[in-house]
Amino acid sequence: MLLLRRCHNLTRFAPLNTQRHQVAPAVTSCAVRLWSSSSSEDHRSYQRGPRWRHALAGLLAGTGAVLAYGLHHHKAEQADLVRVQPIEKTPAFPIFTQEEVTSHRSLEDGVWVTYKGGVYDITDFVAMHPGGDKILLAAGGDLEPFWALYAVHSQEHVLEILSEYKVGELSAEDLKKQQKVESSDPYSSDPKRHPVLHINSLKPFNAEPPPEILTDSYITPSAIFFKRNHLPVPQVDPASYKLHVDGLPGGSLTLSLEELKTQFPKHTITATLQCAGNRRSEMNKVKQVKGLNWGIAAISNATWSGAKLRDVLLAAGYRPDDAQWARHVQFEGLDKDVTGTTYGASIPLNKAISEEGDVLLAYEMNGEDIPADHGYPVRVVVPGTVGARNVKWLGKIIVSADESSSHWQQNDYKGFSPGTDWDTVDFKSAPAIQELPIQSAITTPSDGAMVNRSSEEVTVKGYAWSGGGREVVRVDVSVDGGKTWQVAELKSSEKGQELGPSPPPGRAWAWKLWELTAPLPAEAQELEIVCKAVDNSYNMQPDTVPPIWNLRGVLSNAWHRVKVKIREDESEE
Amino acid sequence: MLLLRRCHNLTRFAPLNTQRHQVAPAVTSCAVRLWSSSSSEDHRSYQRGPRWRHALAGLLAGTGAVLAYGLHHHKAEQADLVRVQPIEKTPAFPIFTQEEVTSHRSLEDGVWVTYKGGVYDITDFVAMHPGGDKILLAAGGDLEPFWALYAVHSQEHVLEILSEYKVGELSAEDLKKQQKVESSDPYSSDPKRHPVLHINSLKPFNAEPPPEILTDSYITPSAIFFKRNHLPVPQVDPASYKLHVDGLPGGSLTLSLEELKTQFPKHTITATLQCAGNRRSEMNKVKQVKGLNWGIAAISNATWSGAKLRDVLLAAGYRPDDAQWARHVQFEGLDKDVTGTTYGASIPLNKAISEEGDVLLAYEMNGEDIPADHGYPVRVVVPGTVGARNVKWLGKIIVSADESSSHWQQNDYKGFSPGTDWDTVDFKSAPAIQELPIQSAITTPSDGAMVNRSSEEVTVKGYAWSGGGREVVRVDVSVDGGKTWQVAELKSSEKGQELGPSPPPGRAWAWKLWELTAPLPAEAQELEIVCKAVDNSYNMQPDTVPPIWNLRGVLSNAWHRVKVKIREDESEE
Repeated sequence: MLLLRRCHNLTRFAPLNTQRHQVAPAVTSCAVRLWSSSSSEDHRSYQRGPRWRHALAGLLAGTGAVLAYGLHHHKAEQADLVRVQPIEKTPAFPIFTQEEVTSHRSLEDGVWVTYKGGVYDITDFVAMHPGGDKILLAAGGDLEPFWALYAVHSQEHVLEILSEYKVGELSAEDLKKQQKVESSDPYSSDPKRHPVLHINSLKPFNAEPPPEILTDSYITPSAIFFKRNHLPVPQVDPASYKLHVDGLPGGSLTLSLEELKTQFPKHTITATLQCAGNRRSEMNKVKQVKGLNWGIAAISNATWSGAKLRDVLLAAGYRPDDAQWARHVQFEGLDKDVTGTTYGASIPLNKAISEEGDVLLAYEMNGEDIPADHGYPVRVVVPGTVGARNVKWLGKIIVSADESSSHWQQNDYKGFSPGTDWDTVDFKSAPAIQELPIQSAITTPSDGAMVNRSSEEVTVKGYAWSGGGREVVRVDVSVDGGKTWQVAELKSSEKGQELGPSPPPGRAWAWKLWELTAPLPAEAQELEIVCKAVDNSYNMQPDTVPPIWNLRGVLSNAWHRVKVKIREDESEE
Repeated sequence: MLLLRRCHNLTRFAPLNTQRHQVAPAVTSCAVRLWSSSSSEDHRSYQRGPRWRHALAGLLAGTGAVLAYGLHHHKAEQADLVRVQPIEKTPAFPIFTQEEVTSHRSLEDGVWVTYKGGVYDITDFVAMHPGGDKILLAAGGDLEPFWALYAVHSQEHVLEILSEYKVGELSAEDLKKQQKVESSDPYSSDPKRHPVLHINSLKPFNAEPPPEILTDSYITPSAIFFKRNHLPVPQVDPASYKLHVDGLPGGSLTLSLEELKTQFPKHTITATLQCAGNRRSEMNKVKQVKGLNWGIAAISNATWSGAKLRDVLLAAGYRPDDAQWARHVQFEGLDKDVTGTTYGASIPLNKAISEEGDVLLAYEMNGEDIPADHGYPVRVVVPGTVGARNVKWLGKIIVSADESSSHWQQNDYKGFSPGTDWDTVDFKSAPAIQELPIQSAITTPSDGAMVNRSSEEVTVKGYAWSGGGREVVRVDVSVDGGKTWQVAELKSSEKGQELGPSPPPGRAWAWKLWELTAPLPAEAQELEIVCKAVDNSYNMQPDTVPPIWNLRGVLSNAWHRVKVKIREDESEE
């Protein structure tokens, strides 16, 4: 209904559709009908405006962009209704100047854009744009720099969609001017990555190591530490880098990298970071969710060194009285989209200011300068807290009464009931994810592996971690699908098998690796190996995925299961 | 094997069995055989020494005493081996003086006791005593005051067991002296209780309210607040009451009740307390555990007022530097067993000293003096932490490098893998329960209730709470056994339906009540109603009980399920 209202408004305020390509009347009657997909699931998502808006608002913000157009692409079966037009110069189209195009940059005046010399009136498409209102930022101008930012647009059917809105050609003179301003790939200066990584998205770069090497080392080498970028990696000159601290009554503080390193004690912690979407692929098997299809390795463990955020806030003038009005500490990254919007997130003030919170403004990872992909020269490390709040390429810190207003804080990293879908979701109803729940997974053997009967036993390895500084105290492993359980051996350091002393309560920031060797059951031909961990608040993992399924596919922490076949390599009888 | 070694030792150091009743040789050959029960489960427990010792060490300490002898009572089928002797004067027994009895009070010299004029050599029974080594405290003396403390001994088969060890009669003169010291029932001054309570154990008193009235009010009236006593309720004179604070370098501090009330600011919090054994009965259905058979109502919510423990520790001289050596704050109750051992527990120092920890030395409950059953005149309230650490009738606070050495801290309230049983358990391997995991349960309708088809819908109510100050953010309810889920409405105050503002992060101490009205599914004849809650660290409840089963039956927080029948009271067709 909201969408119908929108259609009405759009038609009212967009009187230019007489200039439109021949399909324009069908589009404006109600654009929705043009976009229905063959799947009933997708069909529903096109019929309901609010669902569209919420479901997809985040996608072009880099949180699942590869899915957006992919799921809702224009189907050949609608060809009788919408003729797909190749993008080429068609003499039938009128010629417009850049000035004319630029005069259409609002819903009231119509929303026009150019793309490779074509002029498009996308007024009616605005309400359906998977990336939400951000499309208006291109209004009156050229699409190319925007599309270059999000690789999702580099798909043929996106061009097909655009072609439906063609209304003219840009004048040769203006096109020439436009081409002088070469649009460059904002990802062209992204760093080189290790070839072993499994890439979930290239632009922005999102990748995880193969599970079987993830737990080879207690400290994950930086090169294979999972990468989760929302935007292009910014190029930061350490000499001119400035960190700004705002929001406190005493004014703001600006620090150079050198000042951050020399004016504050250097602290080192070992902390595990985990993406909220780790193990999302298991939720996708239950029912499609929106987001990158992470396996079990969007989690890694490193040492981090830097200044304590607490120390910097105190230096910036924070006083205990400020807790009367301040509730959150916001972070802004230096990574930007084409509109200049930076990545942003916030954490509760009490975590930021607590002596035991151990929040770092880190400039070293595993004993070296933080690599480009992980936030060079300075990132926030909020141990025990979801990866998304550990803002990289940190530019600004703001003490505030409010949470970050960023998309990622407000409308993205949140959990919902399995009964909530895009047509019913209210992002305000759920808290932003901060501490993560208890998690564990099996890294060896991999699902579908074979074990020889002659080996007589199977060795199972994996990781376990919990948010909020809660220490993992036990991992139970089953080789019979969860009927019987054995307790795995825990390891909390690189060296040897010994479990180190427990960290202070509430400050267990690092994962534990674990291992169990179990005899092969005599009669089994296949083993279903299952693991589940327990933290020192005795939180347990849920048994199964469907009851924790949620539309964003976050917080996927059910028991992890792999199936292994036993190869009968002996015939003693 | 350990038990066999024990038998050997006992025989070696107990040469007095020539004076024993005729069954003595069979007993000493290996006492184990005498005690085997008809159930194979129980049989095993008698064959394994370490299991016996660990399994039952805590039972007479009040944590499950009703089960101890009940499970392992002497079976009639062994009558051919052991003739049960009624306790009566049998001229065949030799006469002993109290002095002779008193000379046998160690395993080396033999362990003798008296009971109603009989003399018993229980040397061989010591290793099998369900209450563990505590039995040695009665060595050389009379059993009656010990038995009076724990009602578990008031069972006929306990007398039968004792009769097997009779070796003589106490001299008439000494018996007369003994009778002058009347043993009184230590529970005789326990307060009167509300008749609506479901009693799980009378001595010590343990009881819970009926679930259907538990969630009638957001604040549980003190009279129906669940009671969990480990020992008799001590009689404390408020005028002479003293609270001692020890362990700090500056010496100790002693406070009268008046000083506690007037020298420190009075703080009030609303906090839910939950017994570690809440919902243990569901674990018992999987496999018998040791402990009181709590339903779903060993949890209640009250307002508590008192001095902050932090303030008292600071007044006692606590300085930040003390955190270098101090790790725990121990509490001792004024409730004692006959040996003078008080109830005890400890919490981590950081919880005790934190400004946000809100640990109270409470002298008011729901706006009135704390009732006798809840710790009059002063108890500790450790919000977010398992009931067992909220020590009642508080006598002493000790700042220490170590946890409390009490049975309840070391060998009782801990969680284990479902694969761990009494023969394999190592209590040192698990942390003492402090923060509790996410919990919820359905209080209405009750299991087995009927719903009329004509009512067309069913209203489901319950509670949800999480430990560690984590706020409940959502309760999912299913009426189809967990296939589909709806989100319940949460209530966090007495008045109205509105959900109040969230407490500061990490300080959500009180439960939320919840309610959902769902249409009756058209075809269903029975509903399986299920609830599960989520806290703001997005911890979820496990799906099922068996994978979280543990030998002490604690931490029972799987989804709660009730089955309801639909009565077809209409026949429209």
